[in-house]
Amino acid sequence: MTVNFKVMHKDNACRARLGVLRTGHGAIETPVFMPVGTQATVKTMTPEEVKELGGRIILSNTYHLYLRPGHELIREAGGLHRFMNWSGPILTDSGGFQVFSLGPLRKITEEGVVFRSHIDGSEHFFTPEKAMEVQACLGSDIAMAFDECSPYPSTREYTLQALERTTRWAGRCLAVQRGAGQGVFGIVQGGMFPDLREKSARALVEFNFPGYAIGGLSVGEPKQLMYEMLDHTVPLLPQEKPRYLMGVGSPDCLVEGVARGIDMFDCVLPTRIARNGSVFTRRGKLVVRNAAYARDFSPLDPECDCYTCRNYTRAYVRHLIKAGEVLGIRLTTIHNIYFILNLMVEIREAIQDGRMLEYKDEFIKTYQDV
Amino acid sequence: MTVNFKVMHKDNACRARLGVLRTGHGAIETPVFMPVGTQATVKTMTPEEVKELGGRIILSNTYHLYLRPGHELIREAGGLHRFMNWSGPILTDSGGFQVFSLGPLRKITEEGVVFRSHIDGSEHFFTPEKAMEVQACLGSDIAMAFDECSPYPSTREYTLQALERTTRWAGRCLAVQRGAGQGVFGIVQGGMFPDLREKSARALVEFNFPGYAIGGLSVGEPKQLMYEMLDHTVPLLPQEKPRYLMGVGSPDCLVEGVARGIDMFDCVLPTRIARNGSVFTRRGKLVVRNAAYARDFSPLDPECDCYTCRNYTRAYVRHLIKAGEVLGIRLTTIHNIYFILNLMVEIREAIQDGRMLEYKDEFIKTYQDV
Repeated sequence: MTVNFKVMHKDNACRARLGVLRTGHGAIETPVFMPVGTQATVKTMTPEEVKELGGRIILSNTYHLYLRPGHELIREAGGLHRFMNWSGPILTDSGGFQVFSLGPLRKITEEGVVFRSHIDGSEHFFTPEKAMEVQACLGSDIAMAFDECSPYPSTREYTLQALERTTRWAGRCLAVQRGAGQGVFGIVQGGMFPDLREKSARALVEFNFPGYAIGGLSVGEPKQLMYEMLDHTVPLLPQEKPRYLMGVGSPDCLVEGVARGIDMFDCVLPTRIARNGSVFTRRGKLVVRNAAYARDFSPLDPECDCYTCRNYTRAYVRHLIKAGEVLGIRLTTIHNIYFILNLMVEIREAIQDGRMLEYKDEFIKTYQDV
Repeated sequence: MTVNFKVMHKDNACRARLGVLRTGHGAIETPVFMPVGTQATVKTMTPEEVKELGGRIILSNTYHLYLRPGHELIREAGGLHRFMNWSGPILTDSGGFQVFSLGPLRKITEEGVVFRSHIDGSEHFFTPEKAMEVQACLGSDIAMAFDECSPYPSTREYTLQALERTTRWAGRCLAVQRGAGQGVFGIVQGGMFPDLREKSARALVEFNFPGYAIGGLSVGEPKQLMYEMLDHTVPLLPQEKPRYLMGVGSPDCLVEGVARGIDMFDCVLPTRIARNGSVFTRRGKLVVRNAAYARDFSPLDPECDCYTCRNYTRAYVRHLIKAGEVLGIRLTTIHNIYFILNLMVEIREAIQDGRMLEYKDEFIKTYQDV
């Protein structure tokens, strides 16, 4: 089977909805946050830990796995699920975003992109066909079409060119063989230009993808601008298909995104800030690394009941991080992933109860992002 | 209560014995290996993981905790057990070994040792009294007397001077207030000189410590010489007291040490080599980091049933380590700690069955240390 989506319930006061996404590795409830396992591991965690915290689907990065350990090796290992011992669904990105982020190390043509490895400088050529071949080897449940993400800010001309190429590449992605049971999502581009977003969305919808991502947001623009783009783009996508906002995962953006009709999210933020000694709390980010917490024997977030908050103090976590101990970043990662996944549980409950907007307003009122 | 030891069973063919060591945080079976939690964490692991692998008592380092986060802070946190969330027994070293390892950064007098912090270069003064005060703040179940460990090789003259000072310092350690329920072990020195080992042992036994450590071994001398020192020293120690061989933990040395009458061991080796991508197997060390294992889809040790070996391949573990992923060193650490603790289980069974020497010979025959 390929992927399949069903909307189960809609909130009357906003675009938020509950859904179920079925894949060959199980069904997941949406709206959902996907922890990121860039190099075939959600950083610092075992698969069992991810699952215990409520993780049901993870994202992994095609670019990184293609370079190391190599997609052929992962195919030989029996695919990414077996290689990393994760039995739930996996979504792989197309590698496009990473390749385009390489800046001067890459060159784009209609055929594809030449780029140099960030690991050893070796030269590689990625095309839509190659991106699909690599993802077929990985054996992900959801593969992403190979797209061109224009940076922020970009001219209207460049953005138009990139979105039109993305559309042609989407067609090429669908024309090749994909992995068994693999569903392919298209990616809407168009930068910060509402009419270009519309152009991209209308063209992609023609292909009848089983799901649609909104790419090219959270690339440096003000949050308000991102929200405007969502307000404009989401209504152009089919009601019955899942909508995935790529690379977004700060708590306030999750709440705002769901209210605007987004079903899926991924982001390295929770794991990345954890490794820098920062944690989410109901009142905003807390930098537990700071000296202010050296003798603070309270939990990271007094309102949290994760493993870290039930068993350890800010003073201990700070000590571990200052001393360079792995357990420190394990504990902050556990907390942050739990915080985000628990937020998604609350969001789904709020939608079920028809009070998503109230929930959003209440959350935003206390949460101070810094 | 302070610590208490009882020999439960002796092997007739060698000095190996089974015992029970009782502490205020529970009883443990000996011979025992103590995983090392230098900075209030067994590197990469949660306390639950250490326990699940069979860890019953851990060692923590006074020197490191004194410098960071500071013993006063740990006292405020309610002691080391609460600070790090470890409910089992803890043994703390005296800081002596670390301080003496600082080389040119320290200066020894009869009163104590002036040394500079390896973290910020600040100057500190450690005395027997200070070492006991710090360990009382940490609240360990077993504190070690402050000793002077002579390096290898050392002259007879220096070794004699160091052991006599160690004896006088042992007396000073016993003269001060210790932590509630804390037992203090004396440390036999004497380098590689059998008559000096005897001198040290006889003097310390006069103090009637509840346990005796053998220090100053595994400091660079050939293993055969260490075994000779054990053969000579162990019979000089009281039968009814636990004997602790400090800093020794390679699989072959554990087997040889137990056969010579040692009850307790600690060593950073299993966790340290794990972080370098090396793992123990029944046939010796395996450097899973090596390119030879890139496409090896078998477990680290086919004869092992630890979490890592049940769920992951050499290829995956190697990938994680090459990619700098924390999960890689978590998986090798889990395997190595399990390997050593499982070895101790087998050793205790062999003693129970009166076949320790056969077990030792069989083990040594297949295990190739490199």
